[in-house]
Amino acid sequence: MTFPPSPSAVLAQVRIALDERSYPIAIGHGLLGDPTTWAGLPAASTALVVTNDTVAPLYLAPLRAALGHHYRRVLEVVLPDGEQHKDWATLNRIFDALLGAGCDRKTVLFALGGGVVGDMTGFAAACYMRGVPFVQVPTTLLAQVDSSVGGKTAINHPLGKNMVGAFYQPARVVCDLDTLRTLPPREFAAGLAEVIKYGPIADMAFLDWIEAQLPSLLARDAQALAHAVRRSCEIKALVVGQDERESGLRAILNFGHTFGHAIEAGLGYGAWLHGEAVGCGMVMGAELSHGLGLVDAAFVARLRRLVEAAGLPVRAPDLGAERWLALMRLDKKSEAGDIRFVVIESPGRAGVRPAPEPLVREVIARCCA
Amino acid sequence: MTFPPSPSAVLAQVRIALDERSYPIAIGHGLLGDPTTWAGLPAASTALVVTNDTVAPLYLAPLRAALGHHYRRVLEVVLPDGEQHKDWATLNRIFDALLGAGCDRKTVLFALGGGVVGDMTGFAAACYMRGVPFVQVPTTLLAQVDSSVGGKTAINHPLGKNMVGAFYQPARVVCDLDTLRTLPPREFAAGLAEVIKYGPIADMAFLDWIEAQLPSLLARDAQALAHAVRRSCEIKALVVGQDERESGLRAILNFGHTFGHAIEAGLGYGAWLHGEAVGCGMVMGAELSHGLGLVDAAFVARLRRLVEAAGLPVRAPDLGAERWLALMRLDKKSEAGDIRFVVIESPGRAGVRPAPEPLVREVIARCCA
Repeated sequence: MTFPPSPSAVLAQVRIALDERSYPIAIGHGLLGDPTTWAGLPAASTALVVTNDTVAPLYLAPLRAALGHHYRRVLEVVLPDGEQHKDWATLNRIFDALLGAGCDRKTVLFALGGGVVGDMTGFAAACYMRGVPFVQVPTTLLAQVDSSVGGKTAINHPLGKNMVGAFYQPARVVCDLDTLRTLPPREFAAGLAEVIKYGPIADMAFLDWIEAQLPSLLARDAQALAHAVRRSCEIKALVVGQDERESGLRAILNFGHTFGHAIEAGLGYGAWLHGEAVGCGMVMGAELSHGLGLVDAAFVARLRRLVEAAGLPVRAPDLGAERWLALMRLDKKSEAGDIRFVVIESPGRAGVRPAPEPLVREVIARCCA
Repeated sequence: MTFPPSPSAVLAQVRIALDERSYPIAIGHGLLGDPTTWAGLPAASTALVVTNDTVAPLYLAPLRAALGHHYRRVLEVVLPDGEQHKDWATLNRIFDALLGAGCDRKTVLFALGGGVVGDMTGFAAACYMRGVPFVQVPTTLLAQVDSSVGGKTAINHPLGKNMVGAFYQPARVVCDLDTLRTLPPREFAAGLAEVIKYGPIADMAFLDWIEAQLPSLLARDAQALAHAVRRSCEIKALVVGQDERESGLRAILNFGHTFGHAIEAGLGYGAWLHGEAVGCGMVMGAELSHGLGLVDAAFVARLRRLVEAAGLPVRAPDLGAERWLALMRLDKKSEAGDIRFVVIESPGRAGVRPAPEPLVREVIARCCA
């Protein structure tokens, strides 16, 4: 496959409104290799592109060439691919590169890759000299619809996922839909989990649309993808704009994530993809909501069917109930030892609540069966 | 020496005005072991005190006892003392403790110690679960008059000091002047460097006062110390309130620091104390300002005399000119390879400028002689 595969065209712009930290998300085709995409960013002599060894052969050269129109030096750091590398040792390779090249605090970082690259590059940008600008260039569906937007950055700690990080907003997000064509099917399905998520928490009409368009999405139809990315970013923008630092509302974006993070940590990072764990976690979250009397069994069955049809696991791994509970107590939403879950209050509306432990055990038992 | 050595009394309150991130600095006697000092902080079930193995035997027990009135659990992490430990491995011990004890994101961190403990605790608080509240309890003169105030947090990187960090404001700063009585003379002198700094950059009347009161300060007279800490915090509050993230004005607080950081990095962290390097760096900064025609030779001589009388080095280590320049190019104020210095524009007023390299070499040669 040659690049760029299509003429440059911005199909949609979504704005994240956060006062002086506001920024645009550009969604379109052929954006990555087009110099005009990168105009108007903070002036600097040096750009550093952070990517991984899977993405680099596909998209690093065209991005570097395009950035060369705006920066005197375009440096690169190629990290090993995978969630298991989202740690301090790998993060430090970015600092080594920046300091080794004498990069000043105007240097602009570019995160070219999926959620792991975005989280690490964002956190490096937040910390390097106490903050340099950065740009998200997400190349996976999951990163385009979720992780690149909203300023959550982090690395993992052996005792928990995303435990060390910062809220730090990018200067811009550029979603080049062409990059989704090279995504392996398993990664693509993992991204669909986060797209599906926006339905039950915020927009049941979008859930209807996803169900109807699932075959087109799985066939990576350009128009269907454009709508899925755009609508996902719109919903995320609305939520993040109201609660940047997750003091309340923003937590609803973590529907399925308390169960999901336990799966990821319990099996070891990288065993299941994040989106796979979230897919299964959403089914568990729906079961929990049903157990709390909030939604009916048909709603749970509908969500399970859609998650499964998207190619995602709906059976949870059997970690043992005690380990499940211990892992979930480490969740960032926990308070004073109580696990708190994002639940569906009613279809299209989510909230955060603690749940009785017997019910949580029942959900685990049922979903691991 | 028993603790508390005097009845609790707040002598002065200085406010850092940063909108919703505003906070008070309390300056007084007997504060640390008094439960009322710690009332009104964000509610939480757990407090974690971070300190070092020098400070812990002196002040950890009374602080823990006082905090026990407000928190169900009061945990501790005792780090090794010294700038050479201001690194990721040591920082990670704080995360290990927090996660090992299942601390949630309401946990309040307390930094009990000098600048290193404050910088590391603040950075840990900035990053843990993307941000938890923290309180500065500075026990050195340097930390009370400078590093605990203003929200700069960081760790060192082998290639540069404070290169990885965050702007993250504490919820409160508590300067207990009694803790200064146990400070070793060398540490005390290092703190005086940052007190002296506020004169040439902002307030020559304060410089007059320091000169006149130096014997009282060196004798650790309670009233003299109270005024020195108060006036230093007032000036710092004024500057930080106008430029929290160092986009301009705030850089003047780094007078002497470009030369000073080069000394610290060049000799290896811990060889000279930070304040010692800053003391010598201010003399070099004054020489540079004189070389630029901004201040007269009498001003330089006056500052050199005071720095020396405070017990600080005024002769720079001979790192070799090339190494001096290479180290200073890594300074965070550098832009596109140009070293930028805080200079005294006129006595009591500072600014930031690049300087011609031949002049910088001349200053290095003269001060290393």
